[in-house]
Amino acid sequence: MMANAAFKNLKVNGARLMKDIHHTAQWGKGAVWGSGVNDTGMSRLSLSSEDKLVRDWFVKQTKSLGCKVHIDAMGNIFAIRAGRNEGPATFMGSHLDTQPSGGRYDGVLGVLAGLEALRVLEDNKVSTAFPIGLVNWTNEEGARFPTSMVSSGVWAGSIPLERAHNLKEVGGGNATMKSELQRIGYLGDTPASYESTPLAAHFELHIEQGPILEAENKRIGIVKGAQVYRWHTITVGGRECHTGATTFPHRSDALLTAARMISHSHVLASEFLSLASTGVLTLKPGSTNTVPGEVTFSLDIRSGADSQLMLLEEKLKQDFETIAKDELVPGTTRAGIKGRGCSIEWQLDSTSTATTFDADCIRCISESAEAVATEAGIAADDFMKEGMISGAGHDSVYTSKRCPTAMIFIPCKDGISHNPVEYSSPEECATGAQVLLGSVLRFDELRAAKA
Amino acid sequence: MMANAAFKNLKVNGARLMKDIHHTAQWGKGAVWGSGVNDTGMSRLSLSSEDKLVRDWFVKQTKSLGCKVHIDAMGNIFAIRAGRNEGPATFMGSHLDTQPSGGRYDGVLGVLAGLEALRVLEDNKVSTAFPIGLVNWTNEEGARFPTSMVSSGVWAGSIPLERAHNLKEVGGGNATMKSELQRIGYLGDTPASYESTPLAAHFELHIEQGPILEAENKRIGIVKGAQVYRWHTITVGGRECHTGATTFPHRSDALLTAARMISHSHVLASEFLSLASTGVLTLKPGSTNTVPGEVTFSLDIRSGADSQLMLLEEKLKQDFETIAKDELVPGTTRAGIKGRGCSIEWQLDSTSTATTFDADCIRCISESAEAVATEAGIAADDFMKEGMISGAGHDSVYTSKRCPTAMIFIPCKDGISHNPVEYSSPEECATGAQVLLGSVLRFDELRAAKA
Repeated sequence: MMANAAFKNLKVNGARLMKDIHHTAQWGKGAVWGSGVNDTGMSRLSLSSEDKLVRDWFVKQTKSLGCKVHIDAMGNIFAIRAGRNEGPATFMGSHLDTQPSGGRYDGVLGVLAGLEALRVLEDNKVSTAFPIGLVNWTNEEGARFPTSMVSSGVWAGSIPLERAHNLKEVGGGNATMKSELQRIGYLGDTPASYESTPLAAHFELHIEQGPILEAENKRIGIVKGAQVYRWHTITVGGRECHTGATTFPHRSDALLTAARMISHSHVLASEFLSLASTGVLTLKPGSTNTVPGEVTFSLDIRSGADSQLMLLEEKLKQDFETIAKDELVPGTTRAGIKGRGCSIEWQLDSTSTATTFDADCIRCISESAEAVATEAGIAADDFMKEGMISGAGHDSVYTSKRCPTAMIFIPCKDGISHNPVEYSSPEECATGAQVLLGSVLRFDELRAAKA
Repeated sequence: MMANAAFKNLKVNGARLMKDIHHTAQWGKGAVWGSGVNDTGMSRLSLSSEDKLVRDWFVKQTKSLGCKVHIDAMGNIFAIRAGRNEGPATFMGSHLDTQPSGGRYDGVLGVLAGLEALRVLEDNKVSTAFPIGLVNWTNEEGARFPTSMVSSGVWAGSIPLERAHNLKEVGGGNATMKSELQRIGYLGDTPASYESTPLAAHFELHIEQGPILEAENKRIGIVKGAQVYRWHTITVGGRECHTGATTFPHRSDALLTAARMISHSHVLASEFLSLASTGVLTLKPGSTNTVPGEVTFSLDIRSGADSQLMLLEEKLKQDFETIAKDELVPGTTRAGIKGRGCSIEWQLDSTSTATTFDADCIRCISESAEAVATEAGIAADDFMKEGMISGAGHDSVYTSKRCPTAMIFIPCKDGISHNPVEYSSPEECATGAQVLLGSVLRFDELRAAKA
């Protein structure tokens, strides 16, 4: 279906991409390009002064490539390279902000690979059927203003503008998103909305943030959607008592009960081909010789399908009830220890339904990856993994509500992200950028064919 | 062996004892006697202004009974009623300080029951062979100055005076034990030492702080010793990763590993007829969507015998090593979940070997309790439980290193202590005081017979 011949000579410049990655890393932690890739991490919080500097650079670079740039009320920056026809642009995009102790690939790669794609189009005087765009979304990480992907969320109509503008920075400061957008000069005139800035498509290249591609030795992951997740806070109520004077049958040990629940949640999640994780746990009163009377813990459950997750949650609720009563659930043994039981309360904090990416976008990525594999003399099956599910949230989850969307993953070392040691090799980054470029061009051709 | 007839008419006045308990409760939380026994708890931190008031009252009461009172360098107050012969007194004792959110029986009962015993001796003009004493130990709880039983520890020569004097109050204040002893006027001239204030014996009446007597419907527990305990801090090292993007086989989940250890410690402790408890647990980094990379938790293990505890500890170390490697220990199932494993480190924080109380003292208590049972028309076996092991620490653990010692327990409701709802009935308190009086008199007769 695609006139692949037209793309054959378009090659991203991997060295230029890496230079951009390391050059922009100066705004966030004073990283010096050439001093070694892993020697510093990144700390570029959204709407910080460092974020302003990288934004200014981004605007300058895209304008120098002939793009029209506009900024919306959430500080999202849209750079658009004209095509032969009018109409919404086929976009590439991700985010330039990082975690407080993050790396230089998460988000950054997706934006800078898009920039490299625009450079290649310009270098080769490529004329696309429709405009090609590149977007930098504001505060994807939610690390400074505590809502992840908030600005693509506003764009999609899922989060009210006012609520987003009023988000206060974490850590007790008084700055809000709006005040910081004003301060750094990125409170744009365009309403933050899919109606004001329609996207024909959104392609996002991202590091996997997981270990699968590395483990399976694949270079490209084609993402078919994002997991459903539900975040709960669970409170177990027991009774404080003296550790020395109270025998097991007389205890209502909130921590032992929580420990059994955490342990069991992994067994059940595994049975349901899903994930369960506890990242937060607090207890009262917190004394070595007092059995805890109350424990609160987070339970993050995720699955590829909404129905599967709800089945898991139902079973967790049943079994946690049993564990709270200090009765056995299948697969546990306790050598006759049975206490007086505890109370349990569930609170749903946050939820996101499963996202299914667009079939056309996925096909464009798949064909682009296949072409890159062929060029490299590698069998497609050895090169790419199809049907991946993103475990993390991304701006693409929101854009997929309003335009055709899909994502491309590249491997990252040991599956680590949100950490200074986050790393993907220059070759992996270049391969991802090449697949991104090919995907966008294929989507443009598809639009042209449909027009 | 004992001339029990001599004691037959000596009866404690239960109403007077309860009046003292509720009267002194005004110094600590404004409790009003008669407004209901459970309506307030106690907060009488050691060497606080409230502690000064109850001490002043204690000194005044014992002096009014003809006792000589002296105070040592740790603020321990010794009141001594003369006997027919010179020599060290046979002591009763416990402590008047409480937890910040404690009750009015833990410690307080032991001192005020001793006072009631002295009142009975005085009312009846009883002449004992040797002096009878009553001691109020300073800062038994360790709640304000963070070492439990610190002043009986100094007296016994187990804790250096200077270290005790320099203990700072918890919560960031600058007060030390010494500065507070000076402030409230209880830094005594007598050296805090078993050599300066020798005790012929130490009898301590205490609420059980556990549920056994209540469950078995016994009125008196005869304590043969105190448990050995060892307090460890265990650090589990894993690796932070994203909860959504990292499948189970790729995780080193420090919290899941700790949860399995905590759960398993109870199984093993049960098998070894011992106790295991975790009261403190902290984790890093503490984010719902990040698998914890490090967990630190306390492990308090206790047993009736040192050798038994060391066997338990050895097995715990073996099995925790296995769990850290993410391998199965007997009695666990995990539905095929196996991650990458974690590191584990043990640190021993505190230890106390098992204490065996004095056989003569135990015999005196046993005979005293039997007499009270007979008087009440109750079979001794229904009335008292012999051979109990104290799970909690008490000043008697230190006194037993330097003089014959034993303890008497009475039931407390639901086994609860260190809590405002801590409760023993007036009848239970009076029964305990009666057994205490009889024990001391029997020990005095024993001394006379041996002299």
